[in-house]
Amino acid sequence: MNLSETFHRVRNHSLHLCKNLITEDFSLQASEEVSPPKWHLAHTTWFFEQFILVPNDPSYEVKHPQFNFLFNSYYNSLGARTARNQRGLMSRPSVDEVKTYRAYVDAAMLNLIEKKDPKINELVTLGLNHEQQHQELLITDLKYSLWFNPLNPRVMDIQEYKVESKSKWVNVNAGVYQIGYKGKDFCYDNELNPHKVYINDFAVSTTLVTNQEYLEFIEAGGYANPTYWHDEGWAWAKELEIKAPLYWEQQDGAWFYFTLDGLKPIILDAAVAHVNFYEASAFASWKGMRLPTEFEWEVAQNQFEWGKRWEWTNSAYLPYPGFEVAPGAIGEYNGKFMINQMVLRGASVATSEGHSRPTYRNFFHPKYRWQFMGIRLAKSL
Amino acid sequence: MNLSETFHRVRNHSLHLCKNLITEDFSLQASEEVSPPKWHLAHTTWFFEQFILVPNDPSYEVKHPQFNFLFNSYYNSLGARTARNQRGLMSRPSVDEVKTYRAYVDAAMLNLIEKKDPKINELVTLGLNHEQQHQELLITDLKYSLWFNPLNPRVMDIQEYKVESKSKWVNVNAGVYQIGYKGKDFCYDNELNPHKVYINDFAVSTTLVTNQEYLEFIEAGGYANPTYWHDEGWAWAKELEIKAPLYWEQQDGAWFYFTLDGLKPIILDAAVAHVNFYEASAFASWKGMRLPTEFEWEVAQNQFEWGKRWEWTNSAYLPYPGFEVAPGAIGEYNGKFMINQMVLRGASVATSEGHSRPTYRNFFHPKYRWQFMGIRLAKSL
Amino acid sequence: MNLSETFHRVRNHSLHLCKNLITEDFSLQASEEVSPPKWHLAHTTWFFEQFILVPNDPSYEVKHPQFNFLFNSYYNSLGARTARNQRGLMSRPSVDEVKTYRAYVDAAMLNLIEKKDPKINELVTLGLNHEQQHQELLITDLKYSLWFNPLNPRVMDIQEYKVESKSKWVNVNAGVYQIGYKGKDFCYDNELNPHKVYINDFAVSTTLVTNQEYLEFIEAGGYANPTYWHDEGWAWAKELEIKAPLYWEQQDGAWFYFTLDGLKPIILDAAVAHVNFYEASAFASWKGMRLPTEFEWEVAQNQFEWGKRWEWTNSAYLPYPGFEVAPGAIGEYNGKFMINQMVLRGASVATSEGHSRPTYRNFFHPKYRWQFMGIRLAKSL
Amino acid sequence: MNLSETFHRVRNHSLHLCKNLITEDFSLQASEEVSPPKWHLAHTTWFFEQFILVPNDPSYEVKHPQFNFLFNSYYNSLGARTARNQRGLMSRPSVDEVKTYRAYVDAAMLNLIEKKDPKINELVTLGLNHEQQHQELLITDLKYSLWFNPLNPRVMDIQEYKVESKSKWVNVNAGVYQIGYKGKDFCYDNELNPHKVYINDFAVSTTLVTNQEYLEFIEAGGYANPTYWHDEGWAWAKELEIKAPLYWEQQDGAWFYFTLDGLKPIILDAAVAHVNFYEASAFASWKGMRLPTEFEWEVAQNQFEWGKRWEWTNSAYLPYPGFEVAPGAIGEYNGKFMINQMVLRGASVATSEGHSRPTYRNFFHPKYRWQFMGIRLAKSL
Repeated sequence: MNLSETFHRVRNHSLHLCKNLITEDFSLQASEEVSPPKWHLAHTTWFFEQFILVPNDPSYEVKHPQFNFLFNSYYNSLGARTARNQRGLMSRPSVDEVKTYRAYVDAAMLNLIEKKDPKINELVTLGLNHEQQHQELLITDLKYSLWFNPLNPRVMDIQEYKVESKSKWVNVNAGVYQIGYKGKDFCYDNELNPHKVYINDFAVSTTLVTNQEYLEFIEAGGYANPTYWHDEGWAWAKELEIKAPLYWEQQDGAWFYFTLDGLKPIILDAAVAHVNFYEASAFASWKGMRLPTEFEWEVAQNQFEWGKRWEWTNSAYLPYPGFEVAPGAIGEYNGKFMINQMVLRGASVATSEGHSRPTYRNFFHPKYRWQFMGIRLAKSL
Repeated sequence: MNLSETFHRVRNHSLHLCKNLITEDFSLQASEEVSPPKWHLAHTTWFFEQFILVPNDPSYEVKHPQFNFLFNSYYNSLGARTARNQRGLMSRPSVDEVKTYRAYVDAAMLNLIEKKDPKINELVTLGLNHEQQHQELLITDLKYSLWFNPLNPRVMDIQEYKVESKSKWVNVNAGVYQIGYKGKDFCYDNELNPHKVYINDFAVSTTLVTNQEYLEFIEAGGYANPTYWHDEGWAWAKELEIKAPLYWEQQDGAWFYFTLDGLKPIILDAAVAHVNFYEASAFASWKGMRLPTEFEWEVAQNQFEWGKRWEWTNSAYLPYPGFEVAPGAIGEYNGKFMINQMVLRGASVATSEGHSRPTYRNFFHPKYRWQFMGIRLAKSL
Repeated sequence: MNLSETFHRVRNHSLHLCKNLITEDFSLQASEEVSPPKWHLAHTTWFFEQFILVPNDPSYEVKHPQFNFLFNSYYNSLGARTARNQRGLMSRPSVDEVKTYRAYVDAAMLNLIEKKDPKINELVTLGLNHEQQHQELLITDLKYSLWFNPLNPRVMDIQEYKVESKSKWVNVNAGVYQIGYKGKDFCYDNELNPHKVYINDFAVSTTLVTNQEYLEFIEAGGYANPTYWHDEGWAWAKELEIKAPLYWEQQDGAWFYFTLDGLKPIILDAAVAHVNFYEASAFASWKGMRLPTEFEWEVAQNQFEWGKRWEWTNSAYLPYPGFEVAPGAIGEYNGKFMINQMVLRGASVATSEGHSRPTYRNFFHPKYRWQFMGIRLAKSL
Repeated sequence: MNLSETFHRVRNHSLHLCKNLITEDFSLQASEEVSPPKWHLAHTTWFFEQFILVPNDPSYEVKHPQFNFLFNSYYNSLGARTARNQRGLMSRPSVDEVKTYRAYVDAAMLNLIEKKDPKINELVTLGLNHEQQHQELLITDLKYSLWFNPLNPRVMDIQEYKVESKSKWVNVNAGVYQIGYKGKDFCYDNELNPHKVYINDFAVSTTLVTNQEYLEFIEAGGYANPTYWHDEGWAWAKELEIKAPLYWEQQDGAWFYFTLDGLKPIILDAAVAHVNFYEASAFASWKGMRLPTEFEWEVAQNQFEWGKRWEWTNSAYLPYPGFEVAPGAIGEYNGKFMINQMVLRGASVATSEGHSRPTYRNFFHPKYRWQFMGIRLAKSL
C-alpha cells in the first residue's frame, strides 16, 4: 500500500470507530485524563495542519484561526490551548464542522503527499502513527465516559474477551542482549537507539493472567493485605476503596464487567484487563513472582503470543542511551514524559492494526487503569 | 387563559429558548452549579411525572425506569440520582428522546388537567412555576457554559442592557409593616405566612447601580481595599484574583462583556449585572451606604421600577414565622436551603414573564454571580 | 474593683488557665480554626500593644519588631501576618519569652491606665473583653488539640457536666420589643443600637436539651434521615460520616466523652454540648419544633436559666439597624464577619466570669462544633 | 570500636544534634513530609524496642502501651499508628519523657548486645543505620520547619557551604560492570545482589554544579522555558511559581539562603543544594547534557570527590535482579517504596559520619527538595 492509500485508510478508520455514536456522544469527557471523540477527531487533524501543512505548504490556509487554541494537546511550543479538563465543553465547532475540517485537511494533505518529499512523508507517517495512538485512546476514553451512563449504551463490539491457551514457562539465559528498534520502518524516537543491555537468567509465562486467577487473588484477600503492595499502591487502594479491576461490578455475588457492548458477566478464562501497575505488581507478589522488565519482555517476546493486553513491566519509562530530544515542537512528543511512568509492552484489543511492534514502548502513570492493561508473570532464576 | 393553555405556553417556552442551539450545546455543563439545557428540559418533565402523574394517574406508565435516577435533582425522598456534576455526561437519552419524553408526559398531563381536580391542578401550577424557574436557569447556565468557548457563539439576544432613568431617593417611615404574600394566586411556601415586621426609618434608591458607577468603584481600587469587604468576601476575591464582575474582560484598556449574543463593549448606563453579594456589599460600603433588607425592599418596591436584575438584599434566607415544611418530597422544595444563603428580590431580564411578584424570595449563596444579579442602594435615616 | 485591679485579674486569669500545661502543650494547633495557648497569650498582649500603647504612649517601645507580624490575628489594616494555620509552627519566641512579653506590656499598660484618660480606658476595657473571649477560645482550642493525643492528658476540670432542672415551657406574647444593649457598661458594637423588633407569639423551653434526649435522636436514626436536615447539613454529615456530637466515642456499645480532664462516660442528664447548627436544627426538626430566633431568646431569657452552653439560634449574624463600622483597625472587630454565621446566645462553662450578658451576640459558622454549643427548643404558637 | 561503643556513640549523636534546641522546637512539623525532632528521637528508640527487644528479650517490658501507636512510622505489619501529619500534635510524652524512654531502651539494649548473639547484633547494626538515616532527616526536617519562623533562629552550623575544586571530565568506557554491594559489612537489602550491568561510553564531571552556575540558569530564563523541563516538572514549577531552589530568597536584587545558622548571602562557588529532580534535570538539559544513571555514578565514583550533596541520578528506584522482600515488618523497610522515586547517590553535609558508601541508594520522589540535593552532570560519548 502506498502512503496515500495508507493515509486514506487510517483517516477513515477514525471515523469508522464512531459509526454507532450519536451526536451527543462525541462530546463526552468524564475526567481530565480522557478526551471526547470529537476532540480526538479534530486534534489528529490539527496535528497534520500544524506540523506539516503550515510549515511546508505556502498555499495552505488554516481552516479557522481558533482551532490551534482548541485542538492543541500539550505542545507548549505551539502556544496557549484549551485547558485539558475543558475539552468536553467545546460544543462548537459541531461534529459536522469537525468532519468538514477533516476533509479540508485531508485534501491538502493528499496533494502534499503526492509531491513525495521524503522528509515531509516521514512526518506524514509520524502523523498517521499519532492518529493510530489516538484511535486507541478514542476507544478507551469513550469506554470510560460511557461507564457513567446507567443506560449502558452499546456502541462497539471490540471482542474484549480473548481466551488463552495453556500456560507454560520460557527460560532465558543471562547475557548481553541488543535492545531497541533497528529496522528501517517507522518507529518512535523513544525506541532508539539500539543498544546493549545485560540481562540475568529469568523465566516468563507464555500466557497472560486470567480473570479466574485474578478473582482468586481478590477472594484470597489480596486487596486487604498490605504486604503485597507498594506503599503508594496501598494508599491508592485504601483511599478509593478499590476492591477489583476497573469496570468490574458485583451484583448479588456475581461479577459483571462493563464493556462498550453493554454490561456482561465476567468470562473466567479471558485475560484480566483494566488493572493498574499497583494491582499487577501486588498480584505478582501474591504469586511469589514479579513482573518482567521491559528488556526481559523484548528479549523473550518471540517465544509467546502477545497483542491483546498492554502488559505492565517493572521498568520505569526512561531514555535509552544516547536519546536526544528533537528540536521544535516534535521534541515534545516523548521525552518530556520520561518521569514517573511505567513502561507497558505489547498491544491491546483496542490497538489499531499494524501499529505495535516488539520494541514499542507504551507508558502510563502506575495508577491508571482505563487502558486494556493486563499482567504477564516473570521470575528470576 | 385556562390551565391547559398556560401549560401549553410554559412548556413550549422551554423549547423555544433552545431554538438556536445545536445538538452539542444541549449537554454543556461547565461547573457543578450549572446544568445542561437537556437536563433542564428533562428534569422539569420528570417533576410532572413523579409528583403528579405517578401518584395521581393509575393508568400512567413511566417513560423509562432509569429516568427517575437520571433526572431527579435533589429530592432525597425520591431516591438515588446522578451526581450533580455528572449531568453533562448523560449523552443518552438523546435530545430527540428527551423531546419525545416531554411530549409523552405533556399528553398525559393534559388529560389529567382536564379532570379539573383542584388539588392536582394546584400541583400543576407549582410544576409550571418550577419550570419557569428552570427556564431562567437554562439561560444563565447556558451563558456560563458557553463562556468557556473561545468562539463566542450567538444563541440568544435577551436584551441584557437596560438603560435606567435618573436616580432619586425614596424615604420610608418607621413602623410595623405586613410582609409576605396575602393574595389568592400561586406563591411559594417561603413567602407565607403574611406577618408583621418592625422597620426603622430608611431610604432606598429608585434606580439600580450602573456599570458606570461600578467602574468607578473598580478604578478607585475597590477590589484592593479590604475595609469595604466582608472577611469571607475579601478571601474570595484574593484567592480567585477577582477584579471585576463575572463576564467582564479587559482588552487593551477597554472593557467588554460576554453575552449570549457574543462579546460586546460595556454599556456604561446599563445596570451592573453578575456581581455577587460580597461585591454588592463592598460597593455599597464604598459608597458609605448599605444594601436594603428584604423587608425594606418589599415595603418600598411599589415606589420604584424593578424586574431587570435580581437585587441582593442584606437579609439571610430564613423561614418566616410559622413556616412549616410540607410533608413528602415537596417539602424539600424550599426549607432545606434556609442556611447560608442571602435573599434576592425582584426579577431579571432572564425571568419568565409573569413569574415574579413583590413578595418573591429568590436566594443564593453569597459567592455566586452567574445569575443576573445587581445592586440597589439603601441607607438608614 | 477599679480598672487596674480588673486588668490584673483578667491578665492573670489567662496564665492561670495554663497552670497544668507542660511547655510542649503551649504550641498545639490541630486545625486552622484553633490556635495554640502560647499564641492566645501573645496575641491578647499584642492587642494592648498595638491598639493602645503604640498610638497613645510616645515613650513606649515595641518589645520586638517581628511580634506585629507574628501575633496579629486578622487585622488587615495592621499589615501582613503569620498564616493562620501556621501559628503552631512559631516555636520561637518561647513560652518564657511570651510571659516576659506579657509582663513588659502589663507594666506599660498599668502606667497608662493610671492616667485615667477615659477614651484610652474605654479601649482598655475592650482589650480586657477581647482577652476574655480568647480565654474561652484558649480552653476550647486546647480541648480540640489535645483530643488528637491518645494519652488523654488531664489539664483542666471545667465541670462540663451541669445537670438540669425539670423542663417547662414559657409563653411570650406577640408585640414590638426592644432589642440590643441599652446599659452604660461595656458592650460590643454589634449589640448596638437598641431598636424595636416585632415578635410573634412563641414558647421556649426553660431547659437545655440533655445528652439523654440527644441520644434518643441518635438511636431513632436522626443522622440517617435527610428530612430533618438542611441540605448543607446533610451533605456535611454524610461526607464526614458524622454520627454523634464532637468528642463522643462509642466503645463496646457505651458512649464516652472526651474532656480536658480525660475520657469519661456520658452523663445522661447533662446538657448536650459540641453540636453544630445543623445538628441542633435537625434535632429540633425531629422533635417537631424549632430553634428560637436571637430576638425571641433575648426577650425570653429572664424567664429561664442560662450560661452553661452557647445556644444556637435560628438567626443569621447580621447588623442591627444603624450599625456602623468604626474607623481604623478596631472597625474590623465585628462587622466584617456578618455573613454566613449564625448567632449563639448565652454563655458557656468555658466563658470567663462576668463576660456575657443578655444582649451578647456570639457567632459561628453553622458547621463548627468545638465550642460548648447546646440546644434550646422553641415553637410558634 | 565494638558494637556497644558504636551503639553509645550513635545514640548520643542524636541527642547531640538537638543541643541548641529549646523545648518548643522539638515538636515542630511544618508539613506531612517532615517529622518533629522529638518524634525522630522516639521513633528510632521504638525501632529497637519493637524489632529487637520485644521479640528477643523475654524479660523486657515495653515502656508504655501507647508508644507503639505513637512512634510507628509506616510499618503496616505492626498495627495502627498516628497519622503522619499529626506527629507534631503529640505534646505528650514530653521531651524529658522521651529522653527517659531512650535511656530505658538503651539500658536494655546494651544488656542484650553483650550477649553477642550474631543474629540479634545484625539487627542492632540495622537499627543504628536506621538511626543514622533519621539523624540526617532530623536536620533537614528541622531546617524546613524553622524556615517558617521569621525570627531565623540559629541552632546548628553544619558548614553547608563547600567550595569546590576546578571541574574536569572523566571518561568511562563501555562494557559490562559489576554493580551493588559485595563487601562483608553492613548494607541495605536494596544494594544487593551484586550483578552485572552493561554501560555505554560516557563522561561525568568531577565537580558538582555551583550556585554560580545555577544562577546563570535562573538568569537565562531557565524557569520560564518549558523545553528544558519534564512535563510534570513544568506543571510543578508553574503551579507553585517556583523561580529558584528551596530556601533561596531575593531581597533588593541580592540572593540569600536560609540555613540552620540564620539567613546568609548565597556563596557563589558553593555546590547548589535543595533542588529537586525536575530542576536538576532541567538544568542539565539547558547545559545540553544530562544526569548520570545510578550505574554510571557507581562505576565512576572513585574518580571524583563526593559526599557533600545527594546527587540526583536519572535512574528510577527499582529492585536489583533477585531482590526479595524480607519476611515480617523488616520487609517493609525498602521494597514497598520502589515506585515513582528517583535514586540519589553519594551523601551530604548532613549525613552521619561513615553512614554512606559507593553502593548506597538513597531515593526520593522527584518533587522533593528539602534534603541537601545537588547536581552532577554527565554526557554520552
